[in-house]
Amino acid sequence: MASIFTQIVQGEVSAYKIAETDKYLAFLDVSPVVRGHTLVIPKEEVATLWDLDEETYLGLQVFTRLVARAIRAAIPCMRVAEAVIGLEVPHAHIHLFPVNTLSDFNFSQPRVKLSETEFKGIADEIARHLDEMVA
Amino acid sequence: MASIFTQIVQGEVSAYKIAETDKYLAFLDVSPVVRGHTLVIPKEEVATLWDLDEETYLGLQVFTRLVARAIRAAIPCMRVAEAVIGLEVPHAHIHLFPVNTLSDFNFSQPRVKLSETEFKGIADEIARHLDEMVA
Repeated sequence: MASIFTQIVQGEVSAYKIAETDKYLAFLDVSPVVRGHTLVIPKEEVATLWDLDEETYLGLQVFTRLVARAIRAAIPCMRVAEAVIGLEVPHAHIHLFPVNTLSDFNFSQPRVKLSETEFKGIADEIARHLDEMVA
Repeated sequence: MASIFTQIVQGEVSAYKIAETDKYLAFLDVSPVVRGHTLVIPKEEVATLWDLDEETYLGLQVFTRLVARAIRAAIPCMRVAEAVIGLEVPHAHIHLFPVNTLSDFNFSQPRVKLSETEFKGIADEIARHLDEMVA
Protein backbone atom coordinates (compact mmCIF):
# COMPACT_ATOMS: atom_id res chain seq x y z
CA MET A 1 0.00 0.00 0.00
CA ALA A 2 1.18 3.54 -0.79
CA SER A 3 2.61 5.48 2.18
CA ILE A 4 0.56 8.31 3.69
CA PHE A 5 3.03 10.70 2.02
CA THR A 6 2.56 9.12 -1.40
CA GLN A 7 -1.20 9.47 -0.84
CA ILE A 8 -0.64 13.19 -0.18
CA VAL A 9 1.53 13.47 -3.32
CA GLN A 10 -1.22 11.79 -5.34
CA GLY A 11 -3.93 14.01 -3.88
CA GLU A 12 -5.76 11.15 -2.17
CA VAL A 13 -5.09 12.68 1.25
CA SER A 14 -5.24 16.46 1.70
CA ALA A 15 -2.41 18.53 3.19
CA TYR A 16 -1.55 22.16 3.94
CA LYS A 17 1.01 22.50 1.15
CA ILE A 18 3.83 25.05 1.29
CA ALA A 19 5.89 24.31 -1.82
CA GLU A 20 6.01 21.72 -4.56
CA THR A 21 8.31 20.85 -7.46
CA ASP A 22 8.20 17.87 -9.81
CA LYS A 23 10.35 15.90 -7.33
CA TYR A 24 9.72 17.37 -3.86
CA LEU A 25 6.90 18.54 -1.59
CA ALA A 26 6.73 20.57 1.64
CA PHE A 27 3.60 20.65 3.79
CA LEU A 28 2.62 21.19 7.41
CA ASP A 29 2.72 18.31 9.89
CA VAL A 30 -0.90 17.94 11.03
CA SER A 31 0.29 16.96 14.49
CA PRO A 32 2.85 19.72 15.06
CA VAL A 33 5.48 19.72 17.81
CA VAL A 34 5.35 23.53 17.55
CA ARG A 35 3.58 26.01 15.28
CA GLY A 36 5.20 25.94 11.84
CA HIS A 37 6.27 22.27 11.99
CA THR A 38 6.81 21.31 8.37
CA LEU A 39 7.59 18.05 6.55
CA VAL A 40 9.76 17.96 3.45
CA ILE A 41 9.69 14.82 1.29
CA PRO A 42 10.90 13.46 -2.01
CA LYS A 43 7.87 12.38 -4.06
CA GLU A 44 9.61 9.10 -4.78
CA GLU A 45 8.80 6.57 -2.05
CA VAL A 46 12.17 5.44 -0.66
CA ALA A 47 12.29 4.17 2.92
CA THR A 48 15.11 6.27 4.35
CA LEU A 49 16.88 9.54 3.57
CA TRP A 50 20.21 7.69 3.41
CA ASP A 51 18.97 5.39 0.63
CA LEU A 52 17.88 8.06 -1.87
CA ASP A 53 20.03 8.23 -5.00
CA GLU A 54 22.60 11.02 -4.76
CA GLU A 55 20.89 13.40 -7.19
CA THR A 56 17.51 13.11 -5.43
CA TYR A 57 19.20 13.38 -2.02
CA LEU A 58 21.08 16.56 -2.90
CA GLY A 59 18.05 18.11 -4.63
CA LEU A 60 16.04 17.41 -1.49
CA GLN A 61 18.69 19.16 0.64
CA VAL A 62 18.59 22.26 -1.59
CA PHE A 63 14.77 22.30 -1.38
CA THR A 64 14.91 21.74 2.41
CA ARG A 65 17.23 24.70 2.89
CA LEU A 66 14.90 26.99 0.97
CA VAL A 67 11.95 25.88 3.10
CA ALA A 68 13.98 26.27 6.33
CA ARG A 69 14.92 29.83 5.38
CA ALA A 70 11.27 30.60 4.58
CA ILE A 71 10.15 29.26 7.98
CA ARG A 72 12.81 31.44 9.64
CA ALA A 73 11.51 34.48 7.76
CA ALA A 74 7.85 33.68 8.52
CA ILE A 75 8.04 32.71 12.20
CA PRO A 76 10.26 34.57 14.69
CA CYS A 77 12.56 32.00 16.36
CA MET A 78 16.09 31.36 17.58
CA ARG A 79 16.75 28.54 15.11
CA VAL A 80 14.96 26.39 12.54
CA ALA A 81 15.61 22.87 13.78
CA GLU A 82 15.71 19.73 11.65
CA ALA A 83 14.90 16.16 12.60
CA VAL A 84 15.02 12.91 10.67
CA ILE A 85 13.72 9.89 12.57
CA GLY A 86 11.64 7.74 10.23
CA LEU A 87 10.48 5.01 12.62
CA GLU A 88 6.80 5.45 11.74
CA VAL A 89 6.48 6.15 8.00
CA PRO A 90 8.90 4.29 5.70
CA HIS A 91 9.03 7.16 3.19
CA ALA A 92 12.00 9.50 3.62
CA HIS A 93 11.01 12.78 5.28
CA ILE A 94 12.65 15.71 7.02
CA HIS A 95 11.00 17.61 9.89
CA LEU A 96 11.68 21.36 10.06
CA PHE A 97 10.39 23.51 12.91
CA PRO A 98 11.14 26.78 14.68
CA VAL A 99 12.67 26.47 18.15
CA ASN A 100 13.51 28.91 20.91
CA THR A 101 14.58 26.53 23.67
CA LEU A 102 15.75 22.91 23.79
CA SER A 103 12.35 21.96 25.23
CA ASP A 104 10.78 22.89 21.86
CA PHE A 105 12.82 20.02 20.38
CA ASN A 106 10.81 17.18 21.87
CA PHE A 107 8.77 14.71 19.86
CA SER A 108 7.32 13.18 23.02
CA GLN A 109 5.55 16.33 24.18
CA PRO A 110 1.79 16.87 23.60
CA ARG A 111 1.26 18.14 20.07
CA VAL A 112 -0.13 21.60 19.30
CA LYS A 113 -3.81 21.78 18.30
CA LEU A 114 -4.60 24.20 15.49
CA SER A 115 -7.76 25.03 13.54
CA GLU A 116 -7.97 24.60 9.78
CA THR A 117 -7.80 28.41 9.45
CA GLU A 118 -4.64 28.53 11.57
CA PHE A 119 -2.96 25.73 9.58
CA LYS A 120 -3.85 27.46 6.32
CA GLY A 121 -2.58 30.83 7.60
CA ILE A 122 0.78 29.35 8.62
CA ALA A 123 1.24 27.45 5.33
CA ASP A 124 0.38 30.55 3.31
CA GLU A 125 2.75 32.73 5.34
CA ILE A 126 5.72 30.37 4.87
CA ALA A 127 4.84 29.95 1.17
CA ARG A 128 4.72 33.74 0.73
CA HIS A 129 8.23 34.15 2.16
CA LEU A 130 9.50 31.28 0.02
CA ASP A 131 8.02 32.86 -3.12
CA GLU A 132 9.78 36.13 -2.28
CA MET A 133 13.11 34.31 -1.90
CA VAL A 134 12.99 32.57 -5.25
CA ALA A 135 11.43 35.53 -7.10
CA MET B 1 36.65 33.29 20.82
CA ALA B 2 36.76 30.22 18.60
CA SER B 3 33.85 27.78 19.04
CA ILE B 4 34.48 24.48 20.81
CA PHE B 5 34.23 22.82 17.38
CA THR B 6 36.85 25.12 15.87
CA GLN B 7 39.07 24.25 18.85
CA ILE B 8 38.60 20.56 17.99
CA VAL B 9 39.40 21.27 14.32
CA GLN B 10 42.56 23.08 15.39
CA GLY B 11 43.60 20.29 17.77
CA GLU B 12 43.33 22.46 20.88
CA VAL B 13 40.57 20.23 22.25
CA SER B 14 40.73 16.47 21.74
CA ALA B 15 37.96 14.41 20.18
CA TYR B 16 37.19 10.83 19.18
CA LYS B 17 37.47 11.43 15.44
CA ILE B 18 35.72 9.23 12.88
CA ALA B 19 36.46 10.91 9.55
CA GLU B 20 38.09 14.07 8.29
CA THR B 21 38.50 15.84 4.96
CA ASP B 22 39.95 19.27 4.22
CA LYS B 23 36.48 20.81 4.77
CA TYR B 24 34.58 18.49 7.13
CA LEU B 25 35.00 16.53 10.36
CA ALA B 26 33.01 13.78 12.10
CA PHE B 27 33.62 12.87 15.73
CA LEU B 28 31.74 11.38 18.68
CA ASP B 29 29.58 13.58 20.91
CA VAL B 30 31.21 13.28 24.36
CA SER B 31 27.78 13.52 25.99
CA PRO B 32 25.91 10.98 23.87
CA VAL B 33 22.14 10.60 23.74
CA VAL B 34 22.80 6.97 22.75
CA ARG B 35 25.91 4.91 21.96
CA GLY B 36 27.28 5.99 18.57
CA HIS B 37 26.04 9.60 18.78
CA THR B 38 28.18 11.47 16.25
CA LEU B 39 28.62 15.12 15.28
CA VAL B 40 29.35 16.18 11.73
CA ILE B 41 30.62 19.72 11.11
CA PRO B 42 32.03 21.96 8.42
CA LYS B 43 35.47 23.17 9.54
CA GLU B 44 34.44 26.68 8.59
CA GLU B 45 32.77 28.38 11.57
CA VAL B 46 29.34 29.49 10.32
CA ALA B 47 26.54 29.87 12.88
CA THR B 48 23.80 27.80 11.26
CA LEU B 49 23.48 25.02 8.71
CA TRP B 50 21.14 27.20 6.64
CA ASP B 51 23.75 29.95 6.27
CA LEU B 52 26.57 27.86 4.80
CA ASP B 53 27.37 28.67 1.18
CA GLU B 54 25.73 26.19 -1.19
CA GLU B 55 28.89 24.30 -2.12
CA THR B 56 29.91 23.80 1.53
CA TYR B 57 26.33 22.90 2.47
CA LEU B 58 26.01 20.22 -0.21
CA GLY B 59 29.49 18.84 0.46
CA LEU B 60 28.53 18.54 4.13
CA GLN B 61 25.38 16.63 3.19
CA VAL B 62 27.38 14.16 1.06
CA PHE B 63 29.84 13.66 3.94
CA THR B 64 26.96 13.31 6.43
CA ARG B 65 25.34 10.59 4.37
CA LEU B 66 28.55 8.59 4.25
CA VAL B 67 28.92 8.84 8.03
CA ALA B 68 25.24 7.92 8.56
CA ARG B 69 25.66 4.80 6.43
CA ALA B 70 28.83 3.87 8.34
CA ILE B 71 26.99 4.24 11.68
CA ARG B 72 24.21 2.01 10.32
CA ALA B 73 26.79 -0.60 9.31
CA ALA B 74 28.66 -0.40 12.63
CA ILE B 75 25.79 -0.32 15.11
CA PRO B 76 22.67 -2.48 14.70
CA CYS B 77 19.62 -0.18 14.75
CA MET B 78 16.24 0.52 13.16
CA ARG B 79 17.28 3.91 11.75
CA VAL B 80 20.11 6.41 11.88
CA ALA B 81 18.41 9.59 13.06
CA GLU B 82 19.55 13.13 12.36
CA ALA B 83 19.05 16.27 14.42
CA VAL B 84 20.01 19.88 13.86
CA ILE B 85 19.23 22.21 16.76
CA GLY B 86 22.10 24.61 17.26
CA LEU B 87 20.90 26.54 20.29
CA GLU B 88 24.10 25.94 22.27
CA VAL B 89 27.07 26.13 19.89
CA PRO B 90 26.88 28.74 17.08
CA HIS B 91 28.92 26.59 14.68
CA ALA B 92 26.79 24.53 12.25
CA HIS B 93 26.63 20.87 13.27
CA ILE B 94 24.56 17.80 12.53
CA HIS B 95 23.83 15.11 15.12
CA LEU B 96 23.63 11.52 13.85
CA PHE B 97 22.69 8.63 16.12
CA PRO B 98 21.24 5.13 15.92
CA VAL B 99 17.66 4.76 17.17
CA ASN B 100 15.37 1.82 17.78
CA THR B 101 12.38 3.56 19.37
CA LEU B 102 11.12 7.15 19.48
CA SER B 103 12.31 7.37 23.10
CA ASP B 104 15.91 7.12 21.81
CA PHE B 105 15.28 10.46 20.07
CA ASN B 106 15.28 12.63 23.16
CA PHE B 107 17.88 15.28 23.93
CA SER B 108 16.44 15.85 27.39
CA GLN B 109 17.15 12.34 28.67
CA PRO B 110 20.19 11.56 30.85
CA ARG B 111 23.24 11.13 28.64
CA VAL B 112 25.11 7.84 28.30
CA LYS B 113 28.37 7.52 30.24
CA LEU B 114 31.19 5.78 28.41
CA SER B 115 34.83 5.11 29.21
CA GLU B 116 37.64 6.40 27.01
CA THR B 117 38.16 2.83 25.78
CA GLU B 118 34.48 2.53 24.85
CA PHE B 119 34.47 5.88 23.00
CA LYS B 120 37.60 4.89 21.11
CA GLY B 121 36.17 1.48 20.23
CA ILE B 122 32.96 3.02 18.82
CA ALA B 123 34.81 5.69 16.82
CA ASP B 124 37.20 3.08 15.37
CA GLU B 125 34.33 0.73 14.46
CA ILE B 126 32.39 3.45 12.59
CA ALA B 127 35.61 4.63 10.90
CA ARG B 128 36.41 1.08 9.79
CA HIS B 129 33.01 0.71 8.10
CA LEU B 130 33.39 4.12 6.48
CA ASP B 131 36.81 3.20 5.12
CA GLU B 132 35.35 0.02 3.62
CA MET B 133 32.61 2.04 1.91
CA VAL B 134 34.92 4.49 0.22
CA ALA B 135 37.64 1.93 -0.57
